[in-house]
Amino acid sequence: MKRKIIIDTDPGQDDAVAIFLALASPEIDVQAIIAVAGNVPLHHTVENARRVLEMAGRPDIPLYAGAARPLRRTQTTAEHVHGPSGLDGIDTSWSLSMPVQTQSGVDYLIGAIRAAEPKELTLVMLGPLTDLAIALTLAPDIAGRLREVVLMGGAWSELGNITPAAEFNIYADPEAADIVFSAGIPLVVLPLDVTHQCLGLPERLTAMRENGNRCSVAAADMLSFSERFDLKKYGWPGAPLHDPCTIAWLLNPEIFGGRTVNVSIETGNGLCAGMTVVDWWRVTDRTPNALFLRDVDSDAFYSLLTSRLATLP
Amino acid sequence: MKRKIIIDTDPGQDDAVAIFLALASPEIDVQAIIAVAGNVPLHHTVENARRVLEMAGRPDIPLYAGAARPLRRTQTTAEHVHGPSGLDGIDTSWSLSMPVQTQSGVDYLIGAIRAAEPKELTLVMLGPLTDLAIALTLAPDIAGRLREVVLMGGAWSELGNITPAAEFNIYADPEAADIVFSAGIPLVVLPLDVTHQCLGLPERLTAMRENGNRCSVAAADMLSFSERFDLKKYGWPGAPLHDPCTIAWLLNPEIFGGRTVNVSIETGNGLCAGMTVVDWWRVTDRTPNALFLRDVDSDAFYSLLTSRLATLP
Amino acid sequence: MKRKIIIDTDPGQDDAVAIFLALASPEIDVQAIIAVAGNVPLHHTVENARRVLEMAGRPDIPLYAGAARPLRRTQTTAEHVHGPSGLDGIDTSWSLSMPVQTQSGVDYLIGAIRAAEPKELTLVMLGPLTDLAIALTLAPDIAGRLREVVLMGGAWSELGNITPAAEFNIYADPEAADIVFSAGIPLVVLPLDVTHQCLGLPERLTAMRENGNRCSVAAADMLSFSERFDLKKYGWPGAPLHDPCTIAWLLNPEIFGGRTVNVSIETGNGLCAGMTVVDWWRVTDRTPNALFLRDVDSDAFYSLLTSRLATLP
Amino acid sequence: MKRKIIIDTDPGQDDAVAIFLALASPEIDVQAIIAVAGNVPLHHTVENARRVLEMAGRPDIPLYAGAARPLRRTQTTAEHVHGPSGLDGIDTSWSLSMPVQTQSGVDYLIGAIRAAEPKELTLVMLGPLTDLAIALTLAPDIAGRLREVVLMGGAWSELGNITPAAEFNIYADPEAADIVFSAGIPLVVLPLDVTHQCLGLPERLTAMRENGNRCSVAAADMLSFSERFDLKKYGWPGAPLHDPCTIAWLLNPEIFGGRTVNVSIETGNGLCAGMTVVDWWRVTDRTPNALFLRDVDSDAFYSLLTSRLATLP
Ligand SMILES: [Ca+2]
Ligand SMILES: [Ca+2]
Ligand SMILES: [Ca+2]
Ligand SMILES: [Ca+2]
Repeated sequence: MKRKIIIDTDPGQDDAVAIFLALASPEIDVQAIIAVAGNVPLHHTVENARRVLEMAGRPDIPLYAGAARPLRRTQTTAEHVHGPSGLDGIDTSWSLSMPVQTQSGVDYLIGAIRAAEPKELTLVMLGPLTDLAIALTLAPDIAGRLREVVLMGGAWSELGNITPAAEFNIYADPEAADIVFSAGIPLVVLPLDVTHQCLGLPERLTAMRENGNRCSVAAADMLSFSERFDLKKYGWPGAPLHDPCTIAWLLNPEIFGGRTVNVSIETGNGLCAGMTVVDWWRVTDRTPNALFLRDVDSDAFYSLLTSRLATLP
Repeated sequence: MKRKIIIDTDPGQDDAVAIFLALASPEIDVQAIIAVAGNVPLHHTVENARRVLEMAGRPDIPLYAGAARPLRRTQTTAEHVHGPSGLDGIDTSWSLSMPVQTQSGVDYLIGAIRAAEPKELTLVMLGPLTDLAIALTLAPDIAGRLREVVLMGGAWSELGNITPAAEFNIYADPEAADIVFSAGIPLVVLPLDVTHQCLGLPERLTAMRENGNRCSVAAADMLSFSERFDLKKYGWPGAPLHDPCTIAWLLNPEIFGGRTVNVSIETGNGLCAGMTVVDWWRVTDRTPNALFLRDVDSDAFYSLLTSRLATLP
Repeated sequence: MKRKIIIDTDPGQDDAVAIFLALASPEIDVQAIIAVAGNVPLHHTVENARRVLEMAGRPDIPLYAGAARPLRRTQTTAEHVHGPSGLDGIDTSWSLSMPVQTQSGVDYLIGAIRAAEPKELTLVMLGPLTDLAIALTLAPDIAGRLREVVLMGGAWSELGNITPAAEFNIYADPEAADIVFSAGIPLVVLPLDVTHQCLGLPERLTAMRENGNRCSVAAADMLSFSERFDLKKYGWPGAPLHDPCTIAWLLNPEIFGGRTVNVSIETGNGLCAGMTVVDWWRVTDRTPNALFLRDVDSDAFYSLLTSRLATLP
Repeated sequence: MKRKIIIDTDPGQDDAVAIFLALASPEIDVQAIIAVAGNVPLHHTVENARRVLEMAGRPDIPLYAGAARPLRRTQTTAEHVHGPSGLDGIDTSWSLSMPVQTQSGVDYLIGAIRAAEPKELTLVMLGPLTDLAIALTLAPDIAGRLREVVLMGGAWSELGNITPAAEFNIYADPEAADIVFSAGIPLVVLPLDVTHQCLGLPERLTAMRENGNRCSVAAADMLSFSERFDLKKYGWPGAPLHDPCTIAWLLNPEIFGGRTVNVSIETGNGLCAGMTVVDWWRVTDRTPNALFLRDVDSDAFYSLLTSRLATLP
């Protein structure tokens, strides 16, 4: 039976590739996409989500707009990585035709979770956690009805990327992350510790492009664009690939390794704002609340990704 | 022309009296009531709002349910003041017939502000500021469309009531308060500095009860109940009356005195969580963001309140 | 029997007047003076302490230098109030002859407390609490040997002067204050709530000056200088007089009123850094640790001060 | 020419081995030892320092007592690692004869730095940084006179040991660490990232013991005791060896690798208290203040250590 998921996302090139991977996978049934402000402002992430769905030939999937900003922090965006549109690297000028739903993404989310069978829906979070945090504030009962939340965010041993201590998605809205990590929902966390192992080596991007189909070429183009920032910063032979790890985990969890531990969110205003504090060595008595992944077979990951992308238009 | 307001409230006996005062005042047009978790949990505040509207003969006013909990803090309630139902002091057992709208209070709020003329709507906040904070996160554009937000909360020289530093409404959701106080909306703040001057002296409650009508007697009964806590704590000759000050300010601002200053919210987890930090002496360069009231003619206030309550059923 | 005290001070005009008052009072035996960085840098406070002792004809009292800066905060000084020398208002150009001890003030303090009888020594703190905090870190045993610490600092209902939340002496070194307030020493706190009642009204300063003796005229001159800042800021008919309240309390505690309550220090970096959080209404279960004074008979205070100053050279 | 050092230490088995290594090295001239509260309370660390010096045949080196507790934190000790005495693993019952100086360690430190040539003295810090922090508060001028401070403490990618975010020495007194890291002194940091590579594998401890001399056998015995905790916690083939890395760096910096970066200390009370926030990837504009070492040739380290220990009694 297909796994029913809702994707909350701030595309972002890697978000786009994650959505492609989900749409290319018969094991997964994407119920809806919710765009949220994150890598770029909301109007861009909504447009980018439309573009991705149209490119994948799936304008039938309902698309909603979520939160336009984080809860209480000044909005931080990442155009220095993703370009001004968030999807730089492909032609973003053609006109879009698929609609955006008028209902708010948060309202849809609450209603969808309440309408589904208990433990039926999985939520995949690819950006700041604002929408889910608001939904949990308005309707705390949904926490007990989700199957799990699979999210890209945070770091343990890799520490931060946007600050020395914090990863972008969590840093962008630490209060939202705190709400989600405290809600008692089963969480699966794909942190930088994993995504920094999934380097977009030239031969991997070449293989992707050589699929030849529209979506594979676009994926390779987008990743070639967004990797420029990380290649310069880290001096590695390829840039990390983040968001698709969530979908890969749903498809093949055996290629990942991790531990069920406590992850708490630093919400102070100091040096560590937005840090995921991971009790990896269990030196506290905090209750484990997340499966925190740390390892991945990156060849298997790219092989899965590339073969699936080939099945799209 | 009548002033159009929406009341967001967590009744609470003093919320009930504030709603009575608004409904009794021809200068004011109450568009809707939104109940939020605060003094007591959401299911109680919704029921209490229904009870208040029915008692005032206004079941036609649309009632919405807002947030069921604060954004990221553990929920703090105040049954030690208000009793288990939040409206203890009157008979709360009779059955209610007026409906609760199915649309979420936050969704209604966003839509109503967008549908109104610019600067037409005034928002009166009588509980934690969660609903407005969420609305501002989902739809930041509404900040520029409100006429003003008049709220009961915070303190300067009176300092805190729920902690040594913080007043209940702000303490219950400091992140929400921070969002509201940072949003650039014209704010009018009725803090403990004002409400601690509006003591429910025995002769004042007697005068209210002697109006003889249902709502006046209920108001006097409710305030007699809720004052027990404060009388014991402060040893004053009467208990402070909080929420009706907001409506009184709308009706007769001349009986209040204050300054336009900066008010910032402490969102740390330390001793001062939820404190309203008021730059009364202007020792910082923070931009003034609120008319912070500090004085009131309490005789004029009670006179206004009592005479208006007499016009209700 | 005389009360033996050590005065730790950052003169400052009001410190100078406090030292005058102590030296003019036969009930008090000043064992030593320790100068600390505070209102102005250490080299100025040392010079100013020499000047005050020489002016009072007491170069025999040993003078020590304490800490040159606060523990971890960037140094904040108050030349905008006290003038560049800290003693502006009198002629500060004549040459000084009394010595400064070579032993560190902190070392002296530890040794003196250990050498005295248990509960014999009283410590009067008129500036940031750095020296005592360091002494307590190096030698925690001294906490149990002091009779009491009488300090000028903090505020409750008056809130802050250097920031909206914090008074200067505590703000200048909150970590030191936290150490002192947590040490289990009997504390007497003279906060802004008291000192803002001791206004240097023109007739009071005139009476002081009319004593005619050198020290009274100097006191009146100094207070006339330093009040300029507060008169402009507050618009009051006279400026608050701070540090002499500590000595006045030793001489005549009956003219003060207060409560024994818990006072905790906010050490975060946020809006409330250095605030004295006073549990005046006892809404927490924190253990009372200080006699926190709130009221004073200001006429009695100025009468005491002026009559005593007349007995000096 | 010999490098003149002062060692500030909280022995601790690994402190003992570090002191042995310094005393065994002709390149180094140990001017004095200061014992500070840390792994165990001050009276134990003083006794342990005496024991180490007597065992090494160097009772002529002056020994001072420093701070008895951290600045403002509740004292945290580590008997769970080091045993109740701090030197468990060897016979600690024999009687000691060498004296402890009566001057305070902090006073000595200030005087020694001022008496030395500029940039002559190196300070090696093996415990909480309390003593140096106090010295810098009392005498900020010493910051510019030190050659460098070489310290064991903190972590980057290894994160914490006493909490998920913080290493013991920094966590025990974060305010002290903040003072030291902000003082403008050249710093060399040996963090857990280095010391977790210096595992006391069985063959390494065996080689040490096979030296046969008193100090080598004692070192092997002590490390065998203290490793029990880490072996159980981490499941590694040997326990990390911390403090001797500082002396090894002085002797042979070529076996270490690192970067000059900014290291800031989190002093909040939250989840990250005492964390060393390392800007390894230079994503902030904070000024580099420390040579932060990350790599070590652990075979070379143990070879150096073991061969030097053989030269002691
Ligand atoms: Ca994303
Ligand atoms: Ca209320
Ligand atoms: Ca002073
Ligand atoms: Ca150590």
